[in-house]
Amino acid sequence: MSDHHFMSIALKLAERGLGNVAPNPSVGCVIVKDNVVISEGWTGTAHAEVVALKNAKGSAQGATMYVTLEPCCHYGVTGPCTLEIIKSGIKRVVVAIIDPDERVSGKGMQELKEAGIEITYGVMQEEAEKLNVGFFFTKKLHRPFITCKIASTLDGKIATFTNESKWITSEDTRNWVHELRAKYDAIMIGSNTLIHDNPLLTCRLPGFEDRSPMRLIIDSQTKLKKEHNIAKTADKIKTWVITNNEVREKIKNVNYLITNANKNGKICLKDMVSKLVSDIGITRVLVEGGGMLITELLKHQLIDRLIICRSGKILGNDAVPCISNLGIQSISQCYKLKKVKIIDFVDDIVEIWDFYTTTSYL
Amino acid sequence: MSDHHFMSIALKLAERGLGNVAPNPSVGCVIVKDNVVISEGWTGTAHAEVVALKNAKGSAQGATMYVTLEPCCHYGVTGPCTLEIIKSGIKRVVVAIIDPDERVSGKGMQELKEAGIEITYGVMQEEAEKLNVGFFFTKKLHRPFITCKIASTLDGKIATFTNESKWITSEDTRNWVHELRAKYDAIMIGSNTLIHDNPLLTCRLPGFEDRSPMRLIIDSQTKLKKEHNIAKTADKIKTWVITNNEVREKIKNVNYLITNANKNGKICLKDMVSKLVSDIGITRVLVEGGGMLITELLKHQLIDRLIICRSGKILGNDAVPCISNLGIQSISQCYKLKKVKIIDFVDDIVEIWDFYTTTSYL
Repeated sequence: MSDHHFMSIALKLAERGLGNVAPNPSVGCVIVKDNVVISEGWTGTAHAEVVALKNAKGSAQGATMYVTLEPCCHYGVTGPCTLEIIKSGIKRVVVAIIDPDERVSGKGMQELKEAGIEITYGVMQEEAEKLNVGFFFTKKLHRPFITCKIASTLDGKIATFTNESKWITSEDTRNWVHELRAKYDAIMIGSNTLIHDNPLLTCRLPGFEDRSPMRLIIDSQTKLKKEHNIAKTADKIKTWVITNNEVREKIKNVNYLITNANKNGKICLKDMVSKLVSDIGITRVLVEGGGMLITELLKHQLIDRLIICRSGKILGNDAVPCISNLGIQSISQCYKLKKVKIIDFVDDIVEIWDFYTTTSYL
Repeated sequence: MSDHHFMSIALKLAERGLGNVAPNPSVGCVIVKDNVVISEGWTGTAHAEVVALKNAKGSAQGATMYVTLEPCCHYGVTGPCTLEIIKSGIKRVVVAIIDPDERVSGKGMQELKEAGIEITYGVMQEEAEKLNVGFFFTKKLHRPFITCKIASTLDGKIATFTNESKWITSEDTRNWVHELRAKYDAIMIGSNTLIHDNPLLTCRLPGFEDRSPMRLIIDSQTKLKKEHNIAKTADKIKTWVITNNEVREKIKNVNYLITNANKNGKICLKDMVSKLVSDIGITRVLVEGGGMLITELLKHQLIDRLIICRSGKILGNDAVPCISNLGIQSISQCYKLKKVKIIDFVDDIVEIWDFYTTTSYL
């Protein structure tokens, strides 16, 4: 079996932590002896390497460790993984990608090398960067990876002109979105969506009940009231109101993030996304509408991925558009995206598109 | 080999005639002896059965004929196929579907049976009906099968607000559309598209140059001028202007179809589609825009299939929509379509959707 084979298992394990470990990266690790996986680990409360070593129950001597991110060598919430690896008698460590955290950044591998451990670096590096794209964005761009999800008709509408949007897509597709939510650190909506839909924004799939990410409401005029479903469940699921104004009446259990104002007196989006990292520690955010918030993010080049769930319906041009006016005069000025994936549901199509700014980063 | 196997070959052959044989159906035929296909035929100037018998060069004695539509038994432009089949010594005929033409309609099979030929009926009937859907529509609904093709952005726009639409989709997708055109009897556009795009509407793929279907311009105010690309090529490719008004100045080589007016003084679409069959003999029409014509056809339930070619672009809500206002108040009132197929191009997605009215017919 090749290094690629075992690293791909480690990457699959790393996926399990997504949405659960922010502000940390989600790491996967397998320990292999005589071509057999003897133990596995992924980031939870402990680091993946430590979990895998513990699962190996002392038999890691002479084995190879595959890890999707360079092992840490500093004391944080947990001790350095490098120490544990050296102690275990691991003979060789295969690393997918370097940890951009300046406390690590090559020093982890250096330490292992100095202890006489053989290092192989760069196996499935691109895949490992994609998997932890949120973490890399926070370190390199000082903002989270931002995905917008749109549920639209064939003609690009997200609600009737009377603001009815239940339901554009089928139950299958909506369940898929619930599963998607679990892989994000936070769900974000604008205050119009709060008012029109009064959503819960939780994962409501069997087995995913405890995987609901925190909720962020872009709400400069503090329209969230204690009667809203989100406010009523704020004791169970972390909830933030994001505003650029002073908050006079705070709702119980709801947190408030105050951002700078832009020149129009509204939330400065660049300041907001930077504070999502510095103040809340978010690495991946899923924006679920409405059209106005998504349009503002688009204009500020703050969308990295667009997920469009489309159903076989037509509502006409008087319905609510997924994107508002952009003033684009010629085709050459349009926003351009690259197709990543199509998922063919029975009734709907789910499309994943990345902005070229994202793909050129990755 | 099964009857299903040989009929599927006959159906593949039948496909070759689509767009070339209106107002007739496109039929495929194979002759099989000792489990081997000894000859093939499909509708061209002669009927498929006659072509296949000719290709069999006198060796059809005792063979089985697979034909996608009941053989005709009447004198039309050509003589009755039944006579030729009986003369050839064919022992057994397998028919996919009955010919709805009242001059045939079961009488073809009856005649063969009376001549001692064994008949098997109904093999791949559904596929045979779908393949000749245009012909069946003209006989049963007295109108052609109507497909609308839309080239749109991710947000459902077909041009910038300055009416620039070159190009929304990639060259690959546009080439696919050229190939698609060859399978239709006619391409239809509205006069806005004529004015803004000044298109040719031909098949410009190598090998398809002679497969350009006729062109129909919905043009109540006779905006087509002799300077337009379509008028300039009307000597080579049949061209019809469709209007409800008197035409004062006719353009050389252009044909004019006069329809009834509706109560708003515009073209009565129901009368128009019926005259496409009775006056021009069209069975399959591909509508290529613009948004207003497609919206009017939609409102009159005169769209059977929607082909959406989507590229990874966003133009915003001030751009030209693929569908105009419909006044739909609730999701339950929207138009509903059934997904038929997705084609995943490198840059674009091509989606084929059928209206439920179509699928319930088929």
